[in-house]
Amino acid sequence: MTKKDVFVLQDILLGNAQAAAAIRRELETRGILAINLLSSPGAGKTTLLEALADRFKGLARIAVIEGDIETERDAERVRAKGVPAWQITTGGACHLEAKMIGKVLPEVPTDIDFLFIENVGNLVCPAGYDLGERLRVVLLSTPEGDDKPKKYPKAFTTADVLLLSKADLRPYLPFDIEKAKAEALALNPKLRVFVVSAVSGEGMDEFVAFLLNARREIASRA
Amino acid sequence: MTKKDVFVLQDILLGNAQAAAAIRRELETRGILAINLLSSPGAGKTTLLEALADRFKGLARIAVIEGDIETERDAERVRAKGVPAWQITTGGACHLEAKMIGKVLPEVPTDIDFLFIENVGNLVCPAGYDLGERLRVVLLSTPEGDDKPKKYPKAFTTADVLLLSKADLRPYLPFDIEKAKAEALALNPKLRVFVVSAVSGEGMDEFVAFLLNARREIASRA
Repeated sequence: MTKKDVFVLQDILLGNAQAAAAIRRELETRGILAINLLSSPGAGKTTLLEALADRFKGLARIAVIEGDIETERDAERVRAKGVPAWQITTGGACHLEAKMIGKVLPEVPTDIDFLFIENVGNLVCPAGYDLGERLRVVLLSTPEGDDKPKKYPKAFTTADVLLLSKADLRPYLPFDIEKAKAEALALNPKLRVFVVSAVSGEGMDEFVAFLLNARREIASRA
Repeated sequence: MTKKDVFVLQDILLGNAQAAAAIRRELETRGILAINLLSSPGAGKTTLLEALADRFKGLARIAVIEGDIETERDAERVRAKGVPAWQITTGGACHLEAKMIGKVLPEVPTDIDFLFIENVGNLVCPAGYDLGERLRVVLLSTPEGDDKPKKYPKAFTTADVLLLSKADLRPYLPFDIEKAKAEALALNPKLRVFVVSAVSGEGMDEFVAFLLNARREIASRA
């Protein structure tokens, strides 16, 4: 990177931090818990959202903002579950930015409890951009391998929660849950770790209970 | 993106294209086939290289350049197979650039047949950077889902070969091989598609034969 590139990047990040802070303030004033979901493509973010939509039915109101390079596919999957969803297509950019969220926000109902933001599938770039979330959740799916935290450290050091996803595939894979967990916790000792499968339901009750509790904390201060 | 950002990006890409063209010229003069491997984290690039190392033993000489954000892990795995390997750690950047390859190249033996370059695990950013390769190979692993080509189009439109990897996991997953293949071919009709598993060996003979043939073409012109 040249000096000029560094200055341009600093400008972008400063603008992003200001937009993110405004979004966080606005959402928390309304008692809404915002969650930024981060992972590689195909780690199971949308399938997790579909499973959460079913589990939250009657318990909490949710909305979803989807980020993708192209296509409306993920928003369509979430809407099919009866959840309001907005699709942002970045047209090439490898991550969402706070300003993109800010543009959609006026359309999002104000009486929801949770706003999930599914980032572009990418374990690198999204880690550098605060979207105004309260919780950053990174998914690492068992087929990806247990060696990923140290290879892609920023996603893990900046997250609040780690979901070891697609746990149902463990019998067919060499993934070592304890190794992945230990490596992620070595990078970030504050990580809350859940082993989950949206298909078998493993770990989903614990994760839902955690989210409801985190939302109660926000609401009690709103 | 502001106008200033666009100009900076154009400068970077122009510099990269020149460096890539020089690398391609140099390698092809030596009769070396360079292959740029692209995929999400955990799609099986390193495991594929380990399997290729075994299959090429006695048939062809190979070397590997590994790209990662952090750690020397992938280069160590490849070296354990008796293959010379260099690790580039980008320290945060989400893709390799031709200049990084150019720096390593003087150390790479000149009497090899294949130079594999394993890019940073990322289905977005690496697609924009020519590394001087002759063949760009994108891996899409079955656990990632058959809906990925249209969601991450550039990786598929710029590739020469698509490997549908981890084919051995098909019995446990809803991945539709024909759907993924059709969607990728709709984006890029020139793609050569192989269904492979480095674990079961499925499709590996065909892929190895294809590589040996492509290398013969380069060598006959060198």
